[in-house]
Amino acid sequence: MSDSVNDPRVGNWWRTSVIDMKPGEIRYRGYPIEELIGNVSFAQMIWLMTRGELPSEGQGRLLDAALMSAVDHGPQAPSIAIARMAATCGVGLNNAMASAVNVLGDVHGGAGEQAVEMYTAIAARMDAGAALADAVREGLDEAIANHGKFVSGFGHRFHPVDPRAPRLLELVDQAAREGHVAGRFATIARAVEDELAARKGGRRIPMNIDGATAVVYAELGFPAPLARGLFCLSRSVGILAHAWEQSGQGGRNKGPMPREYLWAYDGPPQRAVPTQPSPALRSRAASEAQR
Amino acid sequence: MSDSVNDPRVGNWWRTSVIDMKPGEIRYRGYPIEELIGNVSFAQMIWLMTRGELPSEGQGRLLDAALMSAVDHGPQAPSIAIARMAATCGVGLNNAMASAVNVLGDVHGGAGEQAVEMYTAIAARMDAGAALADAVREGLDEAIANHGKFVSGFGHRFHPVDPRAPRLLELVDQAAREGHVAGRFATIARAVEDELAARKGGRRIPMNIDGATAVVYAELGFPAPLARGLFCLSRSVGILAHAWEQSGQGGRNKGPMPREYLWAYDGPPQRAVPTQPSPALRSRAASEAQR
Amino acid sequence: MSDSVNDPRVGNWWRTSVIDMKPGEIRYRGYPIEELIGNVSFAQMIWLMTRGELPSEGQGRLLDAALMSAVDHGPQAPSIAIARMAATCGVGLNNAMASAVNVLGDVHGGAGEQAVEMYTAIAARMDAGAALADAVREGLDEAIANHGKFVSGFGHRFHPVDPRAPRLLELVDQAAREGHVAGRFATIARAVEDELAARKGGRRIPMNIDGATAVVYAELGFPAPLARGLFCLSRSVGILAHAWEQSGQGGRNKGPMPREYLWAYDGPPQRAVPTQPSPALRSRAASEAQR
Amino acid sequence: MSDSVNDPRVGNWWRTSVIDMKPGEIRYRGYPIEELIGNVSFAQMIWLMTRGELPSEGQGRLLDAALMSAVDHGPQAPSIAIARMAATCGVGLNNAMASAVNVLGDVHGGAGEQAVEMYTAIAARMDAGAALADAVREGLDEAIANHGKFVSGFGHRFHPVDPRAPRLLELVDQAAREGHVAGRFATIARAVEDELAARKGGRRIPMNIDGATAVVYAELGFPAPLARGLFCLSRSVGILAHAWEQSGQGGRNKGPMPREYLWAYDGPPQRAVPTQPSPALRSRAASEAQR
Repeated sequence: MSDSVNDPRVGNWWRTSVIDMKPGEIRYRGYPIEELIGNVSFAQMIWLMTRGELPSEGQGRLLDAALMSAVDHGPQAPSIAIARMAATCGVGLNNAMASAVNVLGDVHGGAGEQAVEMYTAIAARMDAGAALADAVREGLDEAIANHGKFVSGFGHRFHPVDPRAPRLLELVDQAAREGHVAGRFATIARAVEDELAARKGGRRIPMNIDGATAVVYAELGFPAPLARGLFCLSRSVGILAHAWEQSGQGGRNKGPMPREYLWAYDGPPQRAVPTQPSPALRSRAASEAQR
Repeated sequence: MSDSVNDPRVGNWWRTSVIDMKPGEIRYRGYPIEELIGNVSFAQMIWLMTRGELPSEGQGRLLDAALMSAVDHGPQAPSIAIARMAATCGVGLNNAMASAVNVLGDVHGGAGEQAVEMYTAIAARMDAGAALADAVREGLDEAIANHGKFVSGFGHRFHPVDPRAPRLLELVDQAAREGHVAGRFATIARAVEDELAARKGGRRIPMNIDGATAVVYAELGFPAPLARGLFCLSRSVGILAHAWEQSGQGGRNKGPMPREYLWAYDGPPQRAVPTQPSPALRSRAASEAQR
Repeated sequence: MSDSVNDPRVGNWWRTSVIDMKPGEIRYRGYPIEELIGNVSFAQMIWLMTRGELPSEGQGRLLDAALMSAVDHGPQAPSIAIARMAATCGVGLNNAMASAVNVLGDVHGGAGEQAVEMYTAIAARMDAGAALADAVREGLDEAIANHGKFVSGFGHRFHPVDPRAPRLLELVDQAAREGHVAGRFATIARAVEDELAARKGGRRIPMNIDGATAVVYAELGFPAPLARGLFCLSRSVGILAHAWEQSGQGGRNKGPMPREYLWAYDGPPQRAVPTQPSPALRSRAASEAQR
Repeated sequence: MSDSVNDPRVGNWWRTSVIDMKPGEIRYRGYPIEELIGNVSFAQMIWLMTRGELPSEGQGRLLDAALMSAVDHGPQAPSIAIARMAATCGVGLNNAMASAVNVLGDVHGGAGEQAVEMYTAIAARMDAGAALADAVREGLDEAIANHGKFVSGFGHRFHPVDPRAPRLLELVDQAAREGHVAGRFATIARAVEDELAARKGGRRIPMNIDGATAVVYAELGFPAPLARGLFCLSRSVGILAHAWEQSGQGGRNKGPMPREYLWAYDGPPQRAVPTQPSPALRSRAASEAQR
């Protein structure tokens, strides 16, 4: 904070290139806020904040499409179920959103990040001279070694074809034709799809929403961890919508199943709390007696 | 889930009008996802998900502006500081975002909601026949009675004039001229500002970002609690940007101050753990002795 | 931090009477940690940290019993379900615990706090001269006015009699006989139970776990909000146990219901995204045409 | 839930051996709650819930000591600072606790878990025939390879000797003499300390709180991930105490530093939002012109 603070102990411990302020002035990455408002979309602002520079309009539009396409996949997803349950517990919308976004971890929110990693690792092999098919084969092997046989970004437990993926890929193709992106990662992702099908004797395991948004994010130059961050922003919308809807439906302490159904218990049958000293207690009593 | 599930015990316990699915099909509020992608912006999707219908383009643009204008106010805000600290603790970006969004409570994230409440309460008084000035006076009194003398949405501890507010109000005025919104809440908010100045002997306490986004949200018909929800979506962007920047800076277990500085302790001086029975223990021993 | 920091800007902004340190020394409320370890139980330490002084042994034992009695009420409780679902999403145990503890809000975690409030309000009426029966009647009316007809701490949706409550009350009675507590709040709570029964024509609505732990906490002098804090500590145990068990069972992205069941959708039927301008857009075009 | 639910779709999806219920009955791991209350301490209950069986009294006492010794290390720790900041944001104690516990990740909360891993890996080498010194050398190398040169559980940035560690080790030694534990992991941990000193030319890097609680947890047979879970329970106490104290001190939106100090900004100087098309936009216009 240039002028107002000269105490290096306080100021430098909190150092950022994201935002600068003086009384009456706010600048993000150098741009005054009053010039950004009305000229830059929410998606473009997300880009500016995370990347440091403004995107072109075409890049911003593609980011926008990826963000809007992953907002929700229904209450069977733990994040959405948690948001709805939280909304019945007497906490604020911010708290319901937090409990839900929090579970977008490696398994529930990390597929896009892992797909960007795989795509960029394949691209790096190509940069080092490998042919597309070879790079894909090796990159796929590496992804399977790291994350298991379910390849992040491909296949879906519910949808034979995830309707979001082909539509997003169309937009990437269009953006490539218009010169906004190179189209390289769309090529790589399709080659991964082909390689997977070849390995399954022709049965296709189509790209899903995570594989498709990962193409967008990789085309746009986002580092892999930000793919998870962007997914969190996107899914927060569905989380909010469901928490809000649930709070209108009412209900108190809503659990996973209706009240008349309970869980299956498979532990020990009823037993009494031991009143005789356990072996360890006896050995202790013995050792004390010896002293 | 129309066809696939007919078990009322499971299905109806989880009931929603936000999203419907069949294998290969996803619809939000009735709209197939593949038709939404590329035709609807992230901000318009936020509207659809929370409101149930699509906004007009002009309404969507205004919502977009409000969302992009409140993303960040620097690491002195607890939400941003928490995001940065969390990023040094060995958790994922999703977790850092959750810990931070979680604190956007009544005090840190509720001003917009409270301002929408005040504006709509004033509008309701006008609908019931009150003149603007009277409705504002009474609405302001009510807000102060409910939330204290700092009127949510007005005044700023750092900015003499919050540069985001006048720019947002310009956009509202423009949208009113173009017929996208009625402009009623802009009028009300400005009348609140005037009334506050009159009460302070002419010293103006200008609208801040919360008061201005509240005008936008009220103009667009969002219920007050969603103003907080939308703020959470907006601020999540700054939270992500700062968590990401901090993770690039490195650091481990970053606390509020550099390691060489500690806190001020104002409790009891050093003392020994009592070995003599405390009064309560003595009374117990006594009562046991009596038995 | 007496010696090491004399910078009032840093030190006083972070001021505490809970803990003091020097290199090689840690004191809680003045007591050196090495003297506390081995001499003070976990429950006594919880008391010291939140209250500032050590409890007597009898007080510590009673607190211990309240803490251990509320650890879990099964996966139908949203907090426990959330912990289990989170454990399948690829996040750490700390994150699963956080998402779950977070929902112990006014409805899911606030009953104990509200019961302490009611008991202490009744006691205050008695201190001001009211007879027990009158104080109970008025205190009950007030609680119902504040929180609705379900009186916090009494009645249970599943248990005709909550088996935890009478056992805890026995311990309170015993502690009162032994002089550790006064027994006043046990009397008040039983009078509330009687008054409730009288209002229901004799049908008893027995004290539940929250009503009983609230008796303990009130007897021990804990302010009402700490009753919620203590419940969070207690329930964290069940949350941890279930998250841990679930992580051993495996599963990925476990939602509220098995994968073959979906939710009930009650929103609009399938519809097309409008390509014609919406009314608002038309009015905008019209207003632009007029200019 | 034996009798009450026979629907395998609902019941088995939620399966547990932790808790069983019928109306009026609650059993943890088979023990009726009314028999546990008053006979089992909070620490013993934590053991029962996470391990499935009751500990002996001596084992329970040792667990109790480890839990009470790690509750707090002051507001410079991010978890404590977050709790205090959250308490000023208008959220509940449960929410403040959640935001704070959430950051006890690999770096801030994982040292105990990593130390248990190292100790048990060393023990496994000994079980396979290695001598203590060899097993320690190899186990240490492995830990450094996995987690970096700062060996989890040893050394402290603030305390030359962490006063909690030697006192906890005394208790382990005593428990070993009394037959409650074997003492094997105390031996291993001390050998690690010696090996570290040998590698540093004699300069000792003493065991810290995480290394010492890890000895306790390993002696007591807790799997490594539960070491983090237990630490979360323990630190939750300090988190609650600080959140509660802060809420008594008041303050609104308390950030890391006083309001008159800001952060250091090191991003681009002020600049204007570009009105000319960016390169990408130009290329798009060009490609559109060509069509």
